[in-house]
Amino acid sequence: MQESNVDLLIIGAGPSGLMCANALAGRGFNVRVVDKRAVGVVAGQADGIQPRTHEILQSYGLMERLLREGVEIHRNAFYNPGPSGGIERIERTAAISQPTARYPFTMCRHQGGTENFFIDAMRPKGLEVERSTVPTVLELSADSGSSELRDPAAYPVKVVLQHLDRTENDREVVHAKFVLGTDGAHSWVRKAMGIKMDGGHTEFVWGVVDFFPDTDFPDIRARTVIHSIHGSILVVPREGDLVRLYVQLSDVDLKLVDKQTNRVDKGQASPEKLIETAAKILQPYYLRALGDVQWWTVYIIGQRVAEKFSVEDRILIAGDACHTHSPKAGQGMNASMGDTHNLAWKLAYVLRGWADMSLLRTYEAERRKFAQDLIEFDKVWSTLFSGKPRTAQHDDGVTHEATLSAFRRFGGFSSGIGIRYAPSIIVENKHQDCASKLIVGERMIPHVFIHTADAKPVNIHDLLPADTRFKIVVFVADVTTDVGAVPLRGLAERLTAESSFLRRFGHGNHLDVFDILCITSAERDKVDYTDVPEVFRSHWSKVLVDDIDYAGRSGGGGFAAYGIDPKSGAIVVVRPDGYVGTVAPLDRVEDINAYFSGFML
Amino acid sequence: MQESNVDLLIIGAGPSGLMCANALAGRGFNVRVVDKRAVGVVAGQADGIQPRTHEILQSYGLMERLLREGVEIHRNAFYNPGPSGGIERIERTAAISQPTARYPFTMCRHQGGTENFFIDAMRPKGLEVERSTVPTVLELSADSGSSELRDPAAYPVKVVLQHLDRTENDREVVHAKFVLGTDGAHSWVRKAMGIKMDGGHTEFVWGVVDFFPDTDFPDIRARTVIHSIHGSILVVPREGDLVRLYVQLSDVDLKLVDKQTNRVDKGQASPEKLIETAAKILQPYYLRALGDVQWWTVYIIGQRVAEKFSVEDRILIAGDACHTHSPKAGQGMNASMGDTHNLAWKLAYVLRGWADMSLLRTYEAERRKFAQDLIEFDKVWSTLFSGKPRTAQHDDGVTHEATLSAFRRFGGFSSGIGIRYAPSIIVENKHQDCASKLIVGERMIPHVFIHTADAKPVNIHDLLPADTRFKIVVFVADVTTDVGAVPLRGLAERLTAESSFLRRFGHGNHLDVFDILCITSAERDKVDYTDVPEVFRSHWSKVLVDDIDYAGRSGGGGFAAYGIDPKSGAIVVVRPDGYVGTVAPLDRVEDINAYFSGFML
Repeated sequence: MQESNVDLLIIGAGPSGLMCANALAGRGFNVRVVDKRAVGVVAGQADGIQPRTHEILQSYGLMERLLREGVEIHRNAFYNPGPSGGIERIERTAAISQPTARYPFTMCRHQGGTENFFIDAMRPKGLEVERSTVPTVLELSADSGSSELRDPAAYPVKVVLQHLDRTENDREVVHAKFVLGTDGAHSWVRKAMGIKMDGGHTEFVWGVVDFFPDTDFPDIRARTVIHSIHGSILVVPREGDLVRLYVQLSDVDLKLVDKQTNRVDKGQASPEKLIETAAKILQPYYLRALGDVQWWTVYIIGQRVAEKFSVEDRILIAGDACHTHSPKAGQGMNASMGDTHNLAWKLAYVLRGWADMSLLRTYEAERRKFAQDLIEFDKVWSTLFSGKPRTAQHDDGVTHEATLSAFRRFGGFSSGIGIRYAPSIIVENKHQDCASKLIVGERMIPHVFIHTADAKPVNIHDLLPADTRFKIVVFVADVTTDVGAVPLRGLAERLTAESSFLRRFGHGNHLDVFDILCITSAERDKVDYTDVPEVFRSHWSKVLVDDIDYAGRSGGGGFAAYGIDPKSGAIVVVRPDGYVGTVAPLDRVEDINAYFSGFML
Repeated sequence: MQESNVDLLIIGAGPSGLMCANALAGRGFNVRVVDKRAVGVVAGQADGIQPRTHEILQSYGLMERLLREGVEIHRNAFYNPGPSGGIERIERTAAISQPTARYPFTMCRHQGGTENFFIDAMRPKGLEVERSTVPTVLELSADSGSSELRDPAAYPVKVVLQHLDRTENDREVVHAKFVLGTDGAHSWVRKAMGIKMDGGHTEFVWGVVDFFPDTDFPDIRARTVIHSIHGSILVVPREGDLVRLYVQLSDVDLKLVDKQTNRVDKGQASPEKLIETAAKILQPYYLRALGDVQWWTVYIIGQRVAEKFSVEDRILIAGDACHTHSPKAGQGMNASMGDTHNLAWKLAYVLRGWADMSLLRTYEAERRKFAQDLIEFDKVWSTLFSGKPRTAQHDDGVTHEATLSAFRRFGGFSSGIGIRYAPSIIVENKHQDCASKLIVGERMIPHVFIHTADAKPVNIHDLLPADTRFKIVVFVADVTTDVGAVPLRGLAERLTAESSFLRRFGHGNHLDVFDILCITSAERDKVDYTDVPEVFRSHWSKVLVDDIDYAGRSGGGGFAAYGIDPKSGAIVVVRPDGYVGTVAPLDRVEDINAYFSGFML
């Protein structure tokens, strides 16, 4: 059998695997991605993309395409049974209530469309998915605690791959430094490693159907929760005038579930029946399908999290392989992509020999906690959703107030904006006070600043691309006066000293590892980009001012939004994944040095 | 020789010809585009793209790409001689001062890059440029006033084309309904038709050079006007860190000009000499070129307008073939694209038999007036620019105040935003009062409204694509009350009556000719898109509300911005090129009928 070595073998080319593959493509790593499917997903499946995921996609330059191809959902609507027996609207609200979301809406794009964002971005960087390929053997060659496992240059994982589209020479051996299993809820990798799933299945059975509707229902283009006396549905607008309906199946339909496998017998259901049920629930409005149904399925909600996310930090799992939950809050694809966005830069640092293997431990710590929270959220949400509405006959039913209150309470969570990673070697909040609103462990808050050199307004998120570099963002008082200029000169000296992390962990050219931005509270028209010491202007675009743009449409108030005293300033360290790693006063470079010493080599 | 028929033959594939070609591509017309150059422009040439042109590009779906590939210029800076002999900054100002500009900045992209926007958009619509092809014969076969000339289905123009890249069968005869000459300042088409240019040449000789600068000059990324005791330069930032300098040549260099041809002997100049001159002017700042110069030229400013823009409305000229002027106000490519954006839909209507041939007369009327105004503007601007700065020695020199005042005075003009077409068969302002700020003959003012169905904020410009359709935009009071509902029902009846322009000029399906939008002053969460009569909702996205979006970031105040009384409403007719054609009260559909009767068949 042919044998070869790779840095990273990714098994499963869904959103989770592709997020990781694209993040590492073209960066000098030897990465392969295999998938058992002969072709990609063409319709249906996961579709909801939440605000934090928009920001992550933007950090890879992919958001422009999502905006073009996906559908924006700005509104939630809620319906309950009315006095006449038909449904009536209770309320319309914003789909997203997080004020700092850069993109204040949720989006939908069918899973295959989202996968293509990555596939098309990877191709020019020389990485393509190898399809019709499955692993048949997966082994860790070294014992726990062995030196081989601690050596990031070793190839301790052996995988046998089978190419289903070949009749001879269909098997090969791959020796990998790391293997990532992103092969879905029924993950072969997870099972091969004997990783257990904690949790169980609910008793809620739902059907989901994508089609073009003909209807007089006025909220068909909102994300609409409908409780009726005939059951419940969730309406989710889809791209290109499609609509997705999640239809709660009746108790009778529960017989479709095989109690052993918790799988649903799809043969007993049909999309026509789902739409018929939905039409009954939607009364007094009418609903018909135009043309063929695009995609449909029936499922029972599982709520489970893997007991661990890796074996020895060499064989890692992510996405649906780690966690399954209800699709109705639109979280699945987001959690999956979030996993590998979190993991990719850590793998890059370890593979380059820049960081200790212990950095990989933070992947499980950060993402398993998130997955557990997700299940808790999902339990509340699914129960509310599947419960009967409160009516005269059911005074123990679910009230609209309970639904809405849950919706708001979990808004930060479901949008992804509110995710906060706990203190660790890469989350250090001892100086939180110096940037009181930039919560260490949360994502950097987007805000518009102005280029000092050309007065162009730019969202700071666009200066924080997911390029595997840490971003050192220095906020400083007006540099045209001594209040700003003096401390900035002092900082420049400390940053260029022997002891500085730039020198110690910069690997020759510190700009390969760290990008440096400088934001001053000076006035837009009075400061020059040449007013800051050279270390802060590797390029003219790296010097910014917290002021409004010429058109008066954006910018200004950044120091206040971040809780940074304009007189004192602050150093903000943004991780390669866009999360605030630590903050410190301008005169505490030693604490930044200590932060990086905690995991960098 | 091979003979063939075409609807339209475009001679010259610069920005002007390509704008027209792309506008008509894929719409069922038989169009050919030929160009003498074997390859497109690869660097330099025209580059400035102004705010109105951004809006026009957006109406063709091309602005996203310009934003990605071009450079935004937000700032002007002005320098004069300082007391020490070197230059010093007088002021920084906004590059664009028009408050309604959708994109409040100017942009640069080299001409070939801009041409590629069109070439790449045309290709999937089946239209490609035929290169290395020149016309050698151009004849109008019919006499003035003949019935053939009045018949839009006739082919009265004969062109012989020569294919320079063929050794045999290199000539062919093309019979065209229309020919468009967009073959530049030395237009063969113009000369073949004997069309004279009015105006002359200035005495100002300038050099222009594109290069990567190494400099400590802080305004190298602004559009900077520098008057020094050593001469004047204009700095224009370019994409990818390039900079363009326009360098005024000294009186000595005037000897480079051939007084007969008004062409400059480029052999006597060099880019090194231009940069050396610029470096002297920039003192006390230093300036050097990094690497090779990208492009350069030397030229004398001509300020001329063609005496007419067509021969019998069958052979038309546009762009530099019609008007030449100084490049320093960044107008050239904009005026050229504006010409054919104005012309394309008129050709479409005549070719389809939807409008009378007289519609084409408005092309020259609207665009020749604009070109004449452009020359007047350019004369003032060039003189100020080329004049010596006022100093102790030159108290008759140009003051900064004079420069800045001219800059502001002509801001509406140079941005393209302020262009106003005079009353004509397609510009009817008798009811101007009912939308007092939507000036008839000016471009529709961009504003964000909210989709009634899904609460998505959308700029009205995105609902007015350059798809050759007239847009009928109905502004109406709150349709959930009788104040709005009653007049809207009345309007619906009149619009669907036999006498309505929708019936008379709708060619079977009025949506092929007219798109209809309805904007109500109702509250976002209280109105349904199903609340308006069917004629106003060909799609759910056609019904909008003048209210703020859920995030509170855009929308609201549209009736006020347009000067429309929210109680009375108004009908606004937007031409296919985005200019307001006419406005009328809701109960004056007969005046809209009369407007379209003036030129539609």
